[in-house]
Amino acid sequence: MAAIKCIGILTSGGDAPGMNAAIRAVTRTAIYNGFTVKGILRGYRGLVTNEIVDFHSSSVSNIIQLGGTILKTARCEEFKSVEGRQQAYENLKAAGIDALVVIGGDGSLSGANIFAQEHDIPIVGLPGTIDNDLGGTDATIGYDTALNTIMEAVDKLRDTASSHERLFFVEVMGHTAGYLALNGAIATGSEAAIIPEMDTEVDQLAELISQGFRKSKNSAIVIVAENPRTGGAMGLAERVKKEFPQYDARVTILGHIQRGGSPSAQDRILASRMGAMAIQAIMEGQRNVMIGIQNNELVYVPFSRAVRHNKSINRDYVNLVKILSM
Amino acid sequence: MAAIKCIGILTSGGDAPGMNAAIRAVTRTAIYNGFTVKGILRGYRGLVTNEIVDFHSSSVSNIIQLGGTILKTARCEEFKSVEGRQQAYENLKAAGIDALVVIGGDGSLSGANIFAQEHDIPIVGLPGTIDNDLGGTDATIGYDTALNTIMEAVDKLRDTASSHERLFFVEVMGHTAGYLALNGAIATGSEAAIIPEMDTEVDQLAELISQGFRKSKNSAIVIVAENPRTGGAMGLAERVKKEFPQYDARVTILGHIQRGGSPSAQDRILASRMGAMAIQAIMEGQRNVMIGIQNNELVYVPFSRAVRHNKSINRDYVNLVKILSM
Amino acid sequence: MAAIKCIGILTSGGDAPGMNAAIRAVTRTAIYNGFTVKGILRGYRGLVTNEIVDFHSSSVSNIIQLGGTILKTARCEEFKSVEGRQQAYENLKAAGIDALVVIGGDGSLSGANIFAQEHDIPIVGLPGTIDNDLGGTDATIGYDTALNTIMEAVDKLRDTASSHERLFFVEVMGHTAGYLALNGAIATGSEAAIIPEMDTEVDQLAELISQGFRKSKNSAIVIVAENPRTGGAMGLAERVKKEFPQYDARVTILGHIQRGGSPSAQDRILASRMGAMAIQAIMEGQRNVMIGIQNNELVYVPFSRAVRHNKSINRDYVNLVKILSM
Amino acid sequence: MAAIKCIGILTSGGDAPGMNAAIRAVTRTAIYNGFTVKGILRGYRGLVTNEIVDFHSSSVSNIIQLGGTILKTARCEEFKSVEGRQQAYENLKAAGIDALVVIGGDGSLSGANIFAQEHDIPIVGLPGTIDNDLGGTDATIGYDTALNTIMEAVDKLRDTASSHERLFFVEVMGHTAGYLALNGAIATGSEAAIIPEMDTEVDQLAELISQGFRKSKNSAIVIVAENPRTGGAMGLAERVKKEFPQYDARVTILGHIQRGGSPSAQDRILASRMGAMAIQAIMEGQRNVMIGIQNNELVYVPFSRAVRHNKSINRDYVNLVKILSM
Repeated sequence: MAAIKCIGILTSGGDAPGMNAAIRAVTRTAIYNGFTVKGILRGYRGLVTNEIVDFHSSSVSNIIQLGGTILKTARCEEFKSVEGRQQAYENLKAAGIDALVVIGGDGSLSGANIFAQEHDIPIVGLPGTIDNDLGGTDATIGYDTALNTIMEAVDKLRDTASSHERLFFVEVMGHTAGYLALNGAIATGSEAAIIPEMDTEVDQLAELISQGFRKSKNSAIVIVAENPRTGGAMGLAERVKKEFPQYDARVTILGHIQRGGSPSAQDRILASRMGAMAIQAIMEGQRNVMIGIQNNELVYVPFSRAVRHNKSINRDYVNLVKILSM
Repeated sequence: MAAIKCIGILTSGGDAPGMNAAIRAVTRTAIYNGFTVKGILRGYRGLVTNEIVDFHSSSVSNIIQLGGTILKTARCEEFKSVEGRQQAYENLKAAGIDALVVIGGDGSLSGANIFAQEHDIPIVGLPGTIDNDLGGTDATIGYDTALNTIMEAVDKLRDTASSHERLFFVEVMGHTAGYLALNGAIATGSEAAIIPEMDTEVDQLAELISQGFRKSKNSAIVIVAENPRTGGAMGLAERVKKEFPQYDARVTILGHIQRGGSPSAQDRILASRMGAMAIQAIMEGQRNVMIGIQNNELVYVPFSRAVRHNKSINRDYVNLVKILSM
Repeated sequence: MAAIKCIGILTSGGDAPGMNAAIRAVTRTAIYNGFTVKGILRGYRGLVTNEIVDFHSSSVSNIIQLGGTILKTARCEEFKSVEGRQQAYENLKAAGIDALVVIGGDGSLSGANIFAQEHDIPIVGLPGTIDNDLGGTDATIGYDTALNTIMEAVDKLRDTASSHERLFFVEVMGHTAGYLALNGAIATGSEAAIIPEMDTEVDQLAELISQGFRKSKNSAIVIVAENPRTGGAMGLAERVKKEFPQYDARVTILGHIQRGGSPSAQDRILASRMGAMAIQAIMEGQRNVMIGIQNNELVYVPFSRAVRHNKSINRDYVNLVKILSM
Repeated sequence: MAAIKCIGILTSGGDAPGMNAAIRAVTRTAIYNGFTVKGILRGYRGLVTNEIVDFHSSSVSNIIQLGGTILKTARCEEFKSVEGRQQAYENLKAAGIDALVVIGGDGSLSGANIFAQEHDIPIVGLPGTIDNDLGGTDATIGYDTALNTIMEAVDKLRDTASSHERLFFVEVMGHTAGYLALNGAIATGSEAAIIPEMDTEVDQLAELISQGFRKSKNSAIVIVAENPRTGGAMGLAERVKKEFPQYDARVTILGHIQRGGSPSAQDRILASRMGAMAIQAIMEGQRNVMIGIQNNELVYVPFSRAVRHNKSINRDYVNLVKILSM
């Protein structure tokens, strides 16, 4: 393999706070080590449609504090086809890009994995997603910020007068992973978290009403992971109206505000460290690995393992929510 | 009339950030001027059920920065009856309270107005509501904070990747008054505000889709005042799904988080000034007036005028939203 | 005078949050009304050194929420000379700029005033300064944000354990105007504000120690306007160490963080309204006026009056600080 | 040893955000497990002066989000003597307290260690300090919040216009440990961190001026750990004035605002987990251990090791600051 001279970088999937800090770290560490850098716009779509621009140190000035991603992201149907990926590869080669850094979540790294199997290009991934649902890493870039966003919203809710028998449902992201909901509930002292991982075991709303809530006869805040099956916060509020009409249910849906905002210190530092490590991985000849963090050490995680999410919910945390909101 | 020696204070209705700053200012200004102070819990309900406590300077220490109200609020059906108000008056007299300061919105001041007509007790009101829908005052305590809360949420939305043809609907409070929605749209550079004041004139969603939005072919953020008739943000998202299926609509519902949070500097200063003025009003023998602010001067507003909300929406503001988000 | 076709815009002096919102409003309102727009970089320096760029609607996209100014500011010695201003005028003419919008404080508008007397160019000013020390306007762009920045910092201080006989001095900007210090003290419930307007009357530190502070025997927070004469917070802390050694004094100096940060809702709305009004003023043939706000109405203020700061401190506010922090 | 029935809790030393979340978790986990709980006011001073109050579940309601500590802290000279500690022990026994949870930093745990050697009382410690300078734990309660406070302040600084050859010095806490300064610099993209750990090796200011700063000819932000030897930010600014007069130096001193503020999600969750673990430790018969966190697992750390701070600064982080701010 010829020596690597030019590194391309893209962000893909739902954006996550800290992506810009990662872009900055990748770019500047690459330049420091003698590489040239190219930015690919709109994720895989920009690869296919050839939206590739030169990146300099100044391209990433004053972005560490910004939410979103200066490289934009987009969905890309074409990249799901063999032909689309062939086009992407040809554009990469034409642009002189020898290695690729991909920042994104589950779907983005799966795409990288397939692309890497079809074409001879070293790819290193960074875990950028607020859902914290990737394998092989204790944390993902964006998770801490999203958790703080949820917390600050719920703190405001807590201020409002505690009326009798009122239920506040706050819907957060995570239709397959309850981390945000569960940790959000701990951080805010909420009365319960309704999470997908416990979906098949119990009727969490009925349990909440029958046990914890009825006791205190007071208002309760319940963090709800978005979930088509339960209908999320709206669905639960409607169930309350029908089945437990003595209660008053109010709904907050945070939606995409969870994906935005200036990244937290932890997310910026994580992104900076991981971004620098991505360049080191390329220099070491690594390919098809995601940078993960385990026990505060940066590690290489094969793509195949990164996208195999099988973290289970910690039952201790579920208990913590109950005990501490007594 | 005998000299006033003891002043009672209560908060009523939906809570608003800055109510605590007002409670603090009323309490300490009263004490400074030689009055004793009693706090009435849970609004008018506490008057009826006789939940009245002594208030000292230390009772209001370290509360200026807190959202909510340390006096709590509650709905009270009993106070809507003559008998309930009679009971309330007897409790007031038994507690030795000679004058009353009521902090709240529309309904609370209407209640005060009726109470004052039936019983001989001087009442001074303070405008405490995030809706800014009271007559005779340019601003209400809580409005500025709520506006900033909305702004910070929408700022985070703006960070997320601009995908093509995506509509973000953000529902805010104000089912009869579009101030929060309209000013929120100006402050965030949103593409449109859908407000109750324009309900009967045009189909605001159709106008948005046909004009502003289609032109840019890009994502747009629309601030929507809650409104049973349009179904709010959820109702609009469903209309989009049916009538304009080429667009992707996402929903955020801020809900009661708009009522909470640490008050802004402006709300704290307004509440402090108004609270001090309430005591001065009592000392001057005023009764049945709300403290308002007009042209940055504090004024007395008769209850009957305060609750006759007839501020109209400023068309210049509606135009400003359109022109500045081009 | 020939018709105005092209409007130049610059920011000058210390930056203030909301300047970007003003730039956006000026630019888009101008374009909406058929003008072309040019941005002048680095304030008057860019006029002299001819750093002028074309501005489009997209030039001001997504900046309403950003602190600082995308046009930058700088000091400019050359503009203080007749020759420098001559050069500036020639550059303006060469760029085809027919009218100028200047956003800045005292010094910037004084500069505009002189420039306008020497050269035939209509200039409209916007009050952009955190100090709120301009004549003819109730508020300046940036003041509300700075006040909230101070408030949030002092709120954190208040959290710390109240030890006996500890004095916290917090130094804020405003070496000639005590607005930020005085209103900051009201908004945070601080025990005192030490402001330049009262400098010659009393020894404010001695008064604080002898009266308010000694009574409570507790910690106190004192907001201090920067002041070479008192040495600011550091100077006061050293006086305490010498003259009142029984007290422990701690210092926070906020410095330039007061000039930054995402603008508050109020500053964004004020900047948006004023920016739109600046274009209207130009269309009406106004020149050498600053847009001011009085009693919530936008007004034209002659430059000569705008820079003649003679707002006096409201004694009621000084008393409010004392009474409410009892 | 008789069975433990009643657990006392105190906070000591400088306060740290998250202490209240820890108090809440200790209290409610204890009550859940059948213990009674007593709160000791003002740290060890309250032990000596017998300020001990009953604690119920409601005593810790609605405090998880508050900065500071509802139990207060204070310095206590008496506890440094054998007689003082004897008095403390007698008060503990008289109050029926069988075990003690101490939340604090270095000095507080050293005090606990001595107390435990002299008297037969099981003590479990929680690491509560913003300095993150305790042994045996990857994180301390309060550190993450303080880091975010620093970051938000520096972000605002970054907004201000970049003038040529201006140096901003921002002084942060940590006179023996540079974590806050170093990680603060990474999180904000600052140009340098001046930290005590590198004091003896190089003249960090001279190095900064001669290398990094001169190159860019632009403004730079430097995070400075408070340090009597260098004189902190003020001392450095004065050195600049003398030795490098061509530069303009501005100073921000954050001071005690770093100890306050609503705790971050991470600090609340850490405090909640550690608080619950403290009760489990007592139930397991542990004594004289601090709860630490290592590799995301809670562990027991002997007091003697906890107070032996010997974490060294990670050189990779120092390099990261340089490379990423190029």
